[in-house]
Amino acid sequence: MASKRVLVVAGIGNGIGTGAATARLFAKEGYSVALVGRERPGSKAANNLAKEINQEGGQAALFTVPSYSHEDITSAWSSIHSHFPKPDYSIRAALFNVGQGVWKRFLDVTPEDVQASLQTNVAAAFAFSRGAVLSFKENDIEEPNGKRGALIFTGATAGMRGNVTTSAFAAGKFGARALAQVWLKSSERTIFTSHMSAIIDGVIQLDPNADESTSQDTRLDPDSIASSYLFLVNQHRSAWTAELDRKFSHKKAPK
Amino acid sequence: MASKRVLVVAGIGNGIGTGAATARLFAKEGYSVALVGRERPGSKAANNLAKEINQEGGQAALFTVPSYSHEDITSAWSSIHSHFPKPDYSIRAALFNVGQGVWKRFLDVTPEDVQASLQTNVAAAFAFSRGAVLSFKENDIEEPNGKRGALIFTGATAGMRGNVTTSAFAAGKFGARALAQVWLKSSERTIFTSHMSAIIDGVIQLDPNADESTSQDTRLDPDSIASSYLFLVNQHRSAWTAELDRKFSHKKAPK
Amino acid sequence: MASKRVLVVAGIGNGIGTGAATARLFAKEGYSVALVGRERPGSKAANNLAKEINQEGGQAALFTVPSYSHEDITSAWSSIHSHFPKPDYSIRAALFNVGQGVWKRFLDVTPEDVQASLQTNVAAAFAFSRGAVLSFKENDIEEPNGKRGALIFTGATAGMRGNVTTSAFAAGKFGARALAQVWLKSSERTIFTSHMSAIIDGVIQLDPNADESTSQDTRLDPDSIASSYLFLVNQHRSAWTAELDRKFSHKKAPK
Amino acid sequence: MASKRVLVVAGIGNGIGTGAATARLFAKEGYSVALVGRERPGSKAANNLAKEINQEGGQAALFTVPSYSHEDITSAWSSIHSHFPKPDYSIRAALFNVGQGVWKRFLDVTPEDVQASLQTNVAAAFAFSRGAVLSFKENDIEEPNGKRGALIFTGATAGMRGNVTTSAFAAGKFGARALAQVWLKSSERTIFTSHMSAIIDGVIQLDPNADESTSQDTRLDPDSIASSYLFLVNQHRSAWTAELDRKFSHKKAPK
Repeated sequence: MASKRVLVVAGIGNGIGTGAATARLFAKEGYSVALVGRERPGSKAANNLAKEINQEGGQAALFTVPSYSHEDITSAWSSIHSHFPKPDYSIRAALFNVGQGVWKRFLDVTPEDVQASLQTNVAAAFAFSRGAVLSFKENDIEEPNGKRGALIFTGATAGMRGNVTTSAFAAGKFGARALAQVWLKSSERTIFTSHMSAIIDGVIQLDPNADESTSQDTRLDPDSIASSYLFLVNQHRSAWTAELDRKFSHKKAPK
Repeated sequence: MASKRVLVVAGIGNGIGTGAATARLFAKEGYSVALVGRERPGSKAANNLAKEINQEGGQAALFTVPSYSHEDITSAWSSIHSHFPKPDYSIRAALFNVGQGVWKRFLDVTPEDVQASLQTNVAAAFAFSRGAVLSFKENDIEEPNGKRGALIFTGATAGMRGNVTTSAFAAGKFGARALAQVWLKSSERTIFTSHMSAIIDGVIQLDPNADESTSQDTRLDPDSIASSYLFLVNQHRSAWTAELDRKFSHKKAPK
Repeated sequence: MASKRVLVVAGIGNGIGTGAATARLFAKEGYSVALVGRERPGSKAANNLAKEINQEGGQAALFTVPSYSHEDITSAWSSIHSHFPKPDYSIRAALFNVGQGVWKRFLDVTPEDVQASLQTNVAAAFAFSRGAVLSFKENDIEEPNGKRGALIFTGATAGMRGNVTTSAFAAGKFGARALAQVWLKSSERTIFTSHMSAIIDGVIQLDPNADESTSQDTRLDPDSIASSYLFLVNQHRSAWTAELDRKFSHKKAPK
Repeated sequence: MASKRVLVVAGIGNGIGTGAATARLFAKEGYSVALVGRERPGSKAANNLAKEINQEGGQAALFTVPSYSHEDITSAWSSIHSHFPKPDYSIRAALFNVGQGVWKRFLDVTPEDVQASLQTNVAAAFAFSRGAVLSFKENDIEEPNGKRGALIFTGATAGMRGNVTTSAFAAGKFGARALAQVWLKSSERTIFTSHMSAIIDGVIQLDPNADESTSQDTRLDPDSIASSYLFLVNQHRSAWTAELDRKFSHKKAPK
């Protein structure tokens, strides 16, 4: 009997963004979902997301981490492996959707801001992606796509070019994009993985109650992003997309 | 009653490459297909493709052109509009898959080579894409994707960077990539179109009888490219992919 | 005795832009200058530039061409070789500074606009650069830079990305950038040439009488561009700059 | 009387690389030079460089730091300001030439390697560049270049794209490149600075005794890089080069 596919998502936020939309979509596609999120006292968003997926017939489990340190993330990977053991389960997809923004003018940025950006956007991304690649290595090759697993990083405009307002955030997101490129080139594609970096070059629509008439053309829809991630995961290994841009237009909608 | 969607593909080749694979896939997805190909005395590839699609329950029509001049392409668009009239049909997708390669060392390239590359890769692409955009403008917005139509150019490594062996071909493919970018920015995205350029950064597998054991990891699969085009056409207008890279790896497959 | 170095510049314009500034600067640096310009009935700009350089102790000759066709440009190269014969002269630098802008909305662009852009920006650039490379091949290696010659293309923002207003111009400038890349990779760098493409990503200041207080920070200075070209030509072959960006800022100057 | 210009260089290495070559060149051009280097017990390279510059009629001072932490670098800036006080001196140029390479396969990279790369390549670069920008802000505008100061980062191929062997190093160098872009956009160009990032896309020749016949075409010459930095510093503010590529060719030299 085939193993059940598992998607691991780090970065759930308030339950209405890209990470949550991806968890929901993959659950509908038959994946079990491991949700990795930082402990947020008072917030039930991650818990509610797991509940919602389970109630709708999917399978989701929450793995909270006290911090995004290398140790905490590595420990979360161990818990995930215990919860979704082989051969019943097979971790096939992983999404690093965590971002630590620092939105200050550059001369106002402190050394602490720089450290926070580097630790969350790069060091945590390294810990998470290393765990994903090590997991994929244990998989057999899955047909028809010919892959052992797919790793996706949620990017940002700040990872493509530095700007006044992105400041320290850009340093971190550039670093994460480097990780994605190195992993892609480091893995023998016929042996174990394909890796992909998705660059979200736009502003993501986070408020589901926003007035559609004004907002629908000025925001990227998390569900639409999630469908891109599914496309990436399903690509045949003969060809993959190293960096996928989805663009946002500032053009006004006509009346 | 909803109009039947039409895909227009220019560049069918020998019936086993990207253009043909895209025609087959979109036909399976319910599109009627207009095949635009240059008259090739003695070749039945385009005819056979149309027949094959029609026999399998799809709808395809062939529009041969004596050349890829502006006049001949514009005339083909008129024939396509007559064959697939509104309101029964609605042209929703167009793929420019024509390429004129010139594979010589640069000092061996002649002025005629340069002209051939510019006329086929750029001037013909302009004529075709202009016809597509004018067609899309007549469409209503289609839900759930919110678009009037999608235009795709098949790109190439030669359109991304110049190399010794690409020579004059690069000049043409760079130009075609410029067209894709200009159309994308020229169309009001809420009004009529989304445009996309797909860059195929690899060598496409054209021989269906190639030894799979040696070739499957050294070639892009036309069916896999076609599935990318379907993904692009189906993207919601809130986010689109201006340039989609699908990469080829030179890594050897292990035994 | 060492040969006298010659710079060949195609594209003189009205005598106050980049081509003219480069001719003046290289003349001051001891180069003889061959000016290639299209016949412009009624305009004395090119003639006046040659006169000015000769009067100030330099050496300049004008080679007018009826058109920028392959034949006319190739013929101009013959005339230049006759005028500046070996071993007295040695053609060491060549600048293609010709550009054919088409500033229309894309749906207003005609097939003739596209042809004009392709012929001037790409086909003429090919003819000119081929003549330059063939000339450089006849040179010995010059120390201390270790090169036989340097070829420069004046680029533009339109050669980097397509925009609404650049339209057909972009197709041509993208193509010219491809030529620069192919030449660079096609020439054995220790044997005969280094080639460079300079991308001018800004608006060039053409009016020497412009009010300095308002314009000095919103325009690139042609003399400053020319000094970049001199830098490129003087680079040691151990390292060269394939594409040099000089950026323009839209920031307002403070009071 | 005009202030004496000061160049500050962080990263002297063994005294024969890019940092040292830049110090020597700027000293010859009349700059006083502040050398910032990490304490290296047993190494006299930095001391010897300062001595050499002073003996040849230049002016150099060494500022050793126990580490490249934010505090140590900020403290070095204070010492530099004390040593080269206004109005006698004016800090006009700063080069961050420090790099922490990690050359392992990615699965062999440890969390400590990632931390080392982030701290040296990004956090230290932030500390150094912030000190430079704050220094430049105190300057008047210098003619004819119209700038208050110029900041340069020594880049690397690893800052442009991730590769198997660059691994954690790439994450750091990508981040440094982001810093360069953000500083460039954050400074009002008519007010205080122009910033530039020089990407050295090649292998730098570090051994002055290397056999010239084999090495001269396979290495970038530090003196040639230094001359590029001088070019960048001398650019007029009307136009600057955000990223300067100097390329290395793998082509074999002919006999």
